[in-house]
Amino acid sequence: MKKINTAPISGMQELLPEDQAVFNTLKSTIAKTYHSHGFLNIETPIIDRAEILFAKAGGDTEKQVYKVVKTAEASEGSDQALRFDHTVPLARYVVEHENNLNFPFKVTQIGRNFRGERPQKGRFRELYQCDIDVIGRNNLPLAYDADTISTLLETFQNFNLKTPVVARISNRKILSGLIEAFNLEDKSKDIYSIIDHSEKVPLEKTKGNFAEIGLSQANTAMFIDFINISGSRQNTIKKLQNLNIKNNLWLAGLAELDEVLSLLESQGQASNISADMKIVRGLDYYTGTVFEFNLPEYKEIGSVCGGGRYENLASYFTDQVLPGVGGSIGLSRLFYVLKEHNLLNIQTGPSIEYSIIPISSNEYPYAFKVADALRKNGHSTTVILLDKKLGDKLSYAAKISQNGIVIGETEAINHSLTAKNFTTGEKVNLNLNA
Amino acid sequence: MKKINTAPISGMQELLPEDQAVFNTLKSTIAKTYHSHGFLNIETPIIDRAEILFAKAGGDTEKQVYKVVKTAEASEGSDQALRFDHTVPLARYVVEHENNLNFPFKVTQIGRNFRGERPQKGRFRELYQCDIDVIGRNNLPLAYDADTISTLLETFQNFNLKTPVVARISNRKILSGLIEAFNLEDKSKDIYSIIDHSEKVPLEKTKGNFAEIGLSQANTAMFIDFINISGSRQNTIKKLQNLNIKNNLWLAGLAELDEVLSLLESQGQASNISADMKIVRGLDYYTGTVFEFNLPEYKEIGSVCGGGRYENLASYFTDQVLPGVGGSIGLSRLFYVLKEHNLLNIQTGPSIEYSIIPISSNEYPYAFKVADALRKNGHSTTVILLDKKLGDKLSYAAKISQNGIVIGETEAINHSLTAKNFTTGEKVNLNLNA
Repeated sequence: MKKINTAPISGMQELLPEDQAVFNTLKSTIAKTYHSHGFLNIETPIIDRAEILFAKAGGDTEKQVYKVVKTAEASEGSDQALRFDHTVPLARYVVEHENNLNFPFKVTQIGRNFRGERPQKGRFRELYQCDIDVIGRNNLPLAYDADTISTLLETFQNFNLKTPVVARISNRKILSGLIEAFNLEDKSKDIYSIIDHSEKVPLEKTKGNFAEIGLSQANTAMFIDFINISGSRQNTIKKLQNLNIKNNLWLAGLAELDEVLSLLESQGQASNISADMKIVRGLDYYTGTVFEFNLPEYKEIGSVCGGGRYENLASYFTDQVLPGVGGSIGLSRLFYVLKEHNLLNIQTGPSIEYSIIPISSNEYPYAFKVADALRKNGHSTTVILLDKKLGDKLSYAAKISQNGIVIGETEAINHSLTAKNFTTGEKVNLNLNA
Repeated sequence: MKKINTAPISGMQELLPEDQAVFNTLKSTIAKTYHSHGFLNIETPIIDRAEILFAKAGGDTEKQVYKVVKTAEASEGSDQALRFDHTVPLARYVVEHENNLNFPFKVTQIGRNFRGERPQKGRFRELYQCDIDVIGRNNLPLAYDADTISTLLETFQNFNLKTPVVARISNRKILSGLIEAFNLEDKSKDIYSIIDHSEKVPLEKTKGNFAEIGLSQANTAMFIDFINISGSRQNTIKKLQNLNIKNNLWLAGLAELDEVLSLLESQGQASNISADMKIVRGLDYYTGTVFEFNLPEYKEIGSVCGGGRYENLASYFTDQVLPGVGGSIGLSRLFYVLKEHNLLNIQTGPSIEYSIIPISSNEYPYAFKVADALRKNGHSTTVILLDKKLGDKLSYAAKISQNGIVIGETEAINHSLTAKNFTTGEKVNLNLNA
């Protein structure tokens, strides 16, 4: 009988061991792919100074950030809170350790962030985020935008999902240039927001939204046409050029988008990328390339990865200009939706390969030798040390492991071993140096 | 120029990428060894209900636990705080998920816990702890005590440190039996505490402490003799038997210690274990086997791992009896002291194996192909995408990676590749399918 409510707090991820193993497989695929592309792992503290975390944050962030009460023994210093993303602590880290880092600094952070949001299905208050960023000092070549996107794409490809993923890419200079060309700078924020939401609402609603902020019918039609431009690099660039917009920002955006897409094509990703003028990314601080990954066969899932180029990582903390490009996989949500839609190609079942089942404690010494030999060959192995009947031991072993090896007197003397696969029933003779 | 203090909060671990890579190597050695011994990984939330975390905790714990302020959007439910160890959340987890777990449940948790302690050198407020536990339902064979200790010993052996590690093992029933035999139960807590501290103070101080709590000279001498008993299984058991104590708890403790040590001997660990009556472990809740790992050549470092057997994991949460045995490696502190004493055998230097250095952007497409081929062969590879002189690119590449491959026009046409090791200067011709 329970004496107390033992459920985790709502919005916290807590998995059974089998699901945790699948989650860990995704997490380690991410870490391995990031590292294979030259990104260096760092970890920043989970608790940080409130003045750092709130340096830039607006009211909405403050509503979701967990503040921490300093303890009686650690009461010194400024107010403290839990980090809500990896970007703000990264900005602090890069400024703090600038003289010990090599720029461009290709960096990855994988860990939990904390957002006290209203409870919603598939949203988490403790959320694993898996970020990569490339930070330059004073400048950073555009080619790193493609480097970032290709690293993230390859990560998804290494997941080996049952459905394809596509990177949808745009450049915020294009839309900003378009807004400039039509002298709509005063409505810029609204236009960004309407386009950002356009996929989630019917076309008529988007038209209405444009009208509501005072756009003429002609301009509304123009923006509707604009945001429907998407597809391959060549087609998209051609369609955009055909709009014949005379604006330097627009032209710069087009050239950058063309280059990023070209670089991705030369990395063999042509069929996995799409230019798409609907992609703007909500966050204010992106200034060039923006991207979002989707599963085209599962549009309802929405974005599974996103990021972009920013002019300055840490303007609140330093005068040094630190341009960067980055992206993030929200792993807690991703794992949740992939599982819900059955899109994971990962075999479930016990993660332990072998149970060694000594019939009595007389066989323990030999059982330990066998386990040791299997482990040295890279096989996870547990020895069943229960004072129970063989049948009970076998039924426990079948639940926790893939194969069982029974060791009785004969086996301990003859060193003859048979491993039985609990799923298929198949038996294999083992020849171990034990 | 910095505009703000960007140091992490005092007591928080924040490493440069090279140190982080070494830390990660230790962490992954721990995770791999635990898994190879059949322990299943789980993660519990970092934020938990205060009523869970404080269910058992006394005043001292409360002084160190970080409470969390619920946010405007996540204000429902009970008071919340950050977990301060893995044991309390594990107790909640096992009770919550009992029907979906297989017992004995061999479980591991690796992650950060939070203790707002006074700042001290080598102590952390965010501390990585790497726990294993075996939880039984109603009962758990003693052999799992040896299973736990041998898993932790093998973990240290897999660290490949420059100095040996020894597991010092005792059983609390022995000391409890001794206290019973001399009718000193009313001084039990003090005696445990004096013995627990006896290694950190001179012998005379320990004698004085025993006198201070009212022990006779004879009894003081007896306890001093007792705590000096240590060594191999056979010698120790013999010395203890020679004390000729007539008490059932004492005898049970002796038998258990003998069995645990025997099982460890049969796992090839005879030279890495020592029975030691000084080991009591401060925590109240251990009831049988107790152990502590030390580096005998570096006594000043103190314990690097500890644990023991407890009668009941979750008596505050459920009526179900859940006996267990567990141990923990405090990785943040361990990493700190191993580094300080230069005991790590891990090669430092850049963790990225190859930099591909295209002379101009014309060579990018071929550079990407080479990088892809290297990655497919398991090598971490970065492509230097800087608009700089070759010399600048090479000097950056030498800082961030072990080897460099320059790609100019000739290499891009002939597919002839030479990798240069930046440390040794050695050159190797590469034959890649790229």
